[in-house]
Amino acid sequence: MTPEREIVELTKALIRFPSTHSRPSEIQRCADHIASWLSGHGVVFERTDVQGTPSLIVLPEPGYAEVLLMAHFDVVEAGDDMLFEPRESDGRLYGRGAVDDKYAVAAAMVLFRNTLERLRADGRGQADMPFGLLLTGDEEVGGFNGAGAAQKNIRTDFTIAIDGGRPDLIVTKEKGLLHLELSAPGQSAHAARPWLGQSAFDILVEDYSAIKKLFEAQRSDHWHKTMVLSICEVGDGSVNKVPGQARAMLDIRYTEEDDPEAIVAAIREVVRSAVRVDALEPVFIGGESPYLDLLVRHSGGAAVGFEHGTSDARFFSSQGIPGAVWGAEGEMSQHSQEEHVVIASIVMLYDGLDHFFTALKK
Amino acid sequence: MTPEREIVELTKALIRFPSTHSRPSEIQRCADHIASWLSGHGVVFERTDVQGTPSLIVLPEPGYAEVLLMAHFDVVEAGDDMLFEPRESDGRLYGRGAVDDKYAVAAAMVLFRNTLERLRADGRGQADMPFGLLLTGDEEVGGFNGAGAAQKNIRTDFTIAIDGGRPDLIVTKEKGLLHLELSAPGQSAHAARPWLGQSAFDILVEDYSAIKKLFEAQRSDHWHKTMVLSICEVGDGSVNKVPGQARAMLDIRYTEEDDPEAIVAAIREVVRSAVRVDALEPVFIGGESPYLDLLVRHSGGAAVGFEHGTSDARFFSSQGIPGAVWGAEGEMSQHSQEEHVVIASIVMLYDGLDHFFTALKK
Repeated sequence: MTPEREIVELTKALIRFPSTHSRPSEIQRCADHIASWLSGHGVVFERTDVQGTPSLIVLPEPGYAEVLLMAHFDVVEAGDDMLFEPRESDGRLYGRGAVDDKYAVAAAMVLFRNTLERLRADGRGQADMPFGLLLTGDEEVGGFNGAGAAQKNIRTDFTIAIDGGRPDLIVTKEKGLLHLELSAPGQSAHAARPWLGQSAFDILVEDYSAIKKLFEAQRSDHWHKTMVLSICEVGDGSVNKVPGQARAMLDIRYTEEDDPEAIVAAIREVVRSAVRVDALEPVFIGGESPYLDLLVRHSGGAAVGFEHGTSDARFFSSQGIPGAVWGAEGEMSQHSQEEHVVIASIVMLYDGLDHFFTALKK
Repeated sequence: MTPEREIVELTKALIRFPSTHSRPSEIQRCADHIASWLSGHGVVFERTDVQGTPSLIVLPEPGYAEVLLMAHFDVVEAGDDMLFEPRESDGRLYGRGAVDDKYAVAAAMVLFRNTLERLRADGRGQADMPFGLLLTGDEEVGGFNGAGAAQKNIRTDFTIAIDGGRPDLIVTKEKGLLHLELSAPGQSAHAARPWLGQSAFDILVEDYSAIKKLFEAQRSDHWHKTMVLSICEVGDGSVNKVPGQARAMLDIRYTEEDDPEAIVAAIREVVRSAVRVDALEPVFIGGESPYLDLLVRHSGGAAVGFEHGTSDARFFSSQGIPGAVWGAEGEMSQHSQEEHVVIASIVMLYDGLDHFFTALKK
C-alpha cells in the first residue's frame, strides 16, 4: 500500500469514532485504536491519562525527542452523525475531523512507522528516530490535559503541530484566544405583561451590539482581533415568560498588537452583563530557528506566515521552544458541515516532512 | 378550621408538588393528592387522562353542571426549587403556583365540599349542587388535553375560570395568543475565521429588531398586541464555531382588533428566518349573560373588564358558552420568582362565589 492510501484508510477509521467532547468514551475508543495500531507495528509508546484525557506519546528515548510532531484526535461537534461516515469525492476526503485533525494523526503515525522501518532495515531502531509523536485528545477544548500536561515531561528542540497551515504555508504566528461568558440580568414576568418585566435577551442584544463596535476594524488579511457569539441560552424553557436571564459565550481572537486584558476591560466598560473570563490563551510565536530554515528548505516552496487559528503549539512556544504549525489543505472547511482534506496535499506534507527528517539525520 | 386556613394549608400542600411540565410525574402526584382529598370527603368525581394529562371532573350529574368552576394545578418552571417550599409572610402566601393557580384549585375544592355539606345537612346531595369543578393539568402548555378535551364532554351554562382577574375585577375579555418559532439560517465556520461563515445569531438579532418595530404601538392600558422572545438557542454547543443555526420562540398576545394571520404575514415580510406557527389561540370574549350579572351583584363591588393573560376559559367561550375569569389578588407576581397570593383576597373571592351560588339556588 502507498503511504497515501494507508493514511487515507487510517484517517477513515479514525473519523468513524465520533470523538467529540460530549462523548468522552469515543475519545477513549479512538485512542485505543491508535494504541493498537502502534503496538501492531512494534512502536514503543506511552499512554497517559490526565483528568480523563488520553494522550499517546512516542519518543526515541525517555523524555526527549529532537523534533516533536503534534496532532490531535478529538473533534468538534458534528450536528449530523453522517459526518462520522467518511466519504471520498473528487480527490477529497470528507468527514468530521478529516482535516482537523485526524488526517494529521494518521500521517504522523505512518511517517513514524515508515521511518522506523527504514532504520530497522539498516540495523537500527526507535532510539535512532529523529522525531517523536504527541497525539492528544483535548485540543478542541484548550489542550491543557493533553499537550499542556505533556509539555512538562517532554524535552524537545522544535515542535511541528500538524494542525493548520497549508502545504505552501508554514505558520509561525497564531492569534491568541479569549473566551468570555456574558450573563445578562433581567426581570422575569408573565409574557402576557411584558411591561412588568425586563427581558434579559434585550439587554444581551444591546450588549452584543456595543461589543461588536469594538471589533469593527478590518484588514484585508484579517490580522486583527475578531469576535463571535457562539453560544446563547435564554430563559428557563417556558415560552410564556419574559426571560429573566440570558447567557452567551464569546470567542475572541487577538493579535500580538492587542492586550487581552485591555479587550476585557473595554468590553466591561460598554455592557450591562456580567463578564467572566473563561479562557485566555497567548498568541503563538514560533520564533526563528535552524529547524525552521531546514523545514522551509524541504517544504517544496512553502512561505512562512501567520494564521488565525490557535493550536497546541503554544504550550511549547510559551516555554521558549521554537516551533511551527504546518498541514495539508482543508480549503478552510474545518469545523464546518463540509469538512474535508485534499488528499494530494497530504502527500505533499508527508513528503516534505520525510525530506526534512532525512536531512536532519545527516 | 376556617375556610381561609383550610384553603391556605391545602394550597401549601399543592405547592410542594413541583408540577411543572418538565416533571410530568409530579403533575400526576399532584392530581393523586387532589383525588385523595375528594375521596376522603365523599365527593364523587371522574379522573380522566388525555395523552398523559390528568384532569379531575366533579359534576352534579353526568355530563352537566349549571355553572362550571375551572382551575389548574400545573405550574411554570421555577428556576429555583426553593419556590416549591411555600412560605407565609405579611399576609401573603409565596411559592410557585401560589396564585397561578393552586390557591384556586384549593378554594374551589373547599367551596365545593362546604356547599355539599350544607346540602347534606338538609338531606340533599351532590346531585343538587349548583356547580361543578374542572381541575386540569396542562393550562400552562395550552390546555388542549385538559379543558380542551373536557369541553367536548361537559355541558354547562356558564364557566368561571378562577385563573386571573382580581376580587375587584371580573374579566370577560382576554387577549389571544400566538407562539411563533423563528429559525435563522447561518453558515457555520471556525470562530477563528468568522469572515468565512455567517452568524445565525446575527440574522436572528436583525430579525428580532425588525419584528420589534411591528409592536411599537403603546397604550396606557396596554390593550394592544405585545411580543416577547422567551426562548433562544444558538449554535451546537461548541464555543469555537460561528453558529450555523439559531432558533427562537416568540410569545405574542393580540386583541380583538388584531388579525393574528396578518401579524404572522407582517412578520414573515420583514425577517430572513423561517417562521413556524406553534400555537394560535383566539381572544376570549365571555359575553353578556344573566349569570355574569348575578356574579357581579354578589362580587362585593367588582368591575367588569379585560385582562392581558389567556386562560382555559376560551375553550367554552369559543363554543358560545358565556363565561368569566375571576380570582384572588396576586399583585402581578404570577410566573415570577416572587409569585404570591394575598391571603385576605382569597376569602373575598370565596365569599363572593359562595353568595353567588347561594343566590343561584334560590
